[in-house]
Amino acid sequence: MAEPLTLHEDPRSGNCYKIRLTAALLGVPLATRSYDIMKGETRTPEFLARVNANGRIPVLQIGDGDTARFLPESNAACWYIALGSPLVPEDRFAQADVLRWMFFEQYNHEPNVATLRFWLRFVGEANLSAEQRAQIMPKRIAGSAALDLMNRHLAGRAFFCGEAASLADIALFAYTHVAEEGGFGLRDYPQVLAWIARVQALPGFVPMD
Amino acid sequence: MAEPLTLHEDPRSGNCYKIRLTAALLGVPLATRSYDIMKGETRTPEFLARVNANGRIPVLQIGDGDTARFLPESNAACWYIALGSPLVPEDRFAQADVLRWMFFEQYNHEPNVATLRFWLRFVGEANLSAEQRAQIMPKRIAGSAALDLMNRHLAGRAFFCGEAASLADIALFAYTHVAEEGGFGLRDYPQVLAWIARVQALPGFVPMD
Repeated sequence: MAEPLTLHEDPRSGNCYKIRLTAALLGVPLATRSYDIMKGETRTPEFLARVNANGRIPVLQIGDGDTARFLPESNAACWYIALGSPLVPEDRFAQADVLRWMFFEQYNHEPNVATLRFWLRFVGEANLSAEQRAQIMPKRIAGSAALDLMNRHLAGRAFFCGEAASLADIALFAYTHVAEEGGFGLRDYPQVLAWIARVQALPGFVPMD
Repeated sequence: MAEPLTLHEDPRSGNCYKIRLTAALLGVPLATRSYDIMKGETRTPEFLARVNANGRIPVLQIGDGDTARFLPESNAACWYIALGSPLVPEDRFAQADVLRWMFFEQYNHEPNVATLRFWLRFVGEANLSAEQRAQIMPKRIAGSAALDLMNRHLAGRAFFCGEAASLADIALFAYTHVAEEGGFGLRDYPQVLAWIARVQALPGFVPMD
């Protein structure tokens, strides 16, 4: 990658951590620029006009100045960094299977496991709206189902798509390894715990903080 | 693709339609096997054991018999079919940008635009739980925000990732073009309406029904 990469991030976000972890495992240099989402720093007119009209982080910036390009969506940013590396297999089925777990992560896992962590650890249960409070139990059930599916899939497998780590593992690791901060008990998922240890042992691994 | 492809689907599902549309645009043969999700046909022990432990459709089956492989997640199935075609650009940024919109679709669009269509058209408002009813307004707001972002992005663009159609367009078209069935007024989004007409004019296009 000839152009410099800058990650627009909030360091507490697992979605941002996915991108930092991908870059670290591959030895790709990555500058960072921090925002506090709790203070609305990604909703300013300048951010919406230049970085992401969706008002969300992470966004991967490629290049600098007037020719800079911006890539929102954590898993798309990971793909940009990892395409052509062993984290994105070339085989048609293997590549689609990696994406299968990355879409599962965004649809079945993140809205439940990550949102409960955000609400309970960062917003605080006392500060939730009635509408959010009514969502705690459905999200607890759906998040537990996602963790249970992961636990069953990992039986007899080292990583999600076979014997080698891929972007599927990075995408799912980010919020799974801190799921207890959202009230999920990881001891119920022993295969997941063993897989977390395998991800943490990968060469180049960096922790979330 | 040497192996036969079979789509496990419910024909009313936009997620299933994405895969049929991708195959049709590329001239790839695709057999189908239908299930009625309203009757729980994707939650049987046989389906969970063989096709998808997540109990969801669509699932793309590759091959037959004991060596068949199964690929859940609509956007991953589209990727399997379209990789190497013009619907998945090879350039690193362009490919990641296609995925950016496919992840946006699963995270910001589908849970709102598709879920309201399912609840209002297929389940029926009178049959919704109190918890579901409380989610109508937040999903209306979030779905409208997704459509508005799409509308602004399409100003000056023929398709989501430039002048040629890609999987980003197929993923977003599926539930957008039937959004009025979920109570969204598409006349508020003229760029989206013009883009819908462009997708419908693509060679090989097939309608949802």
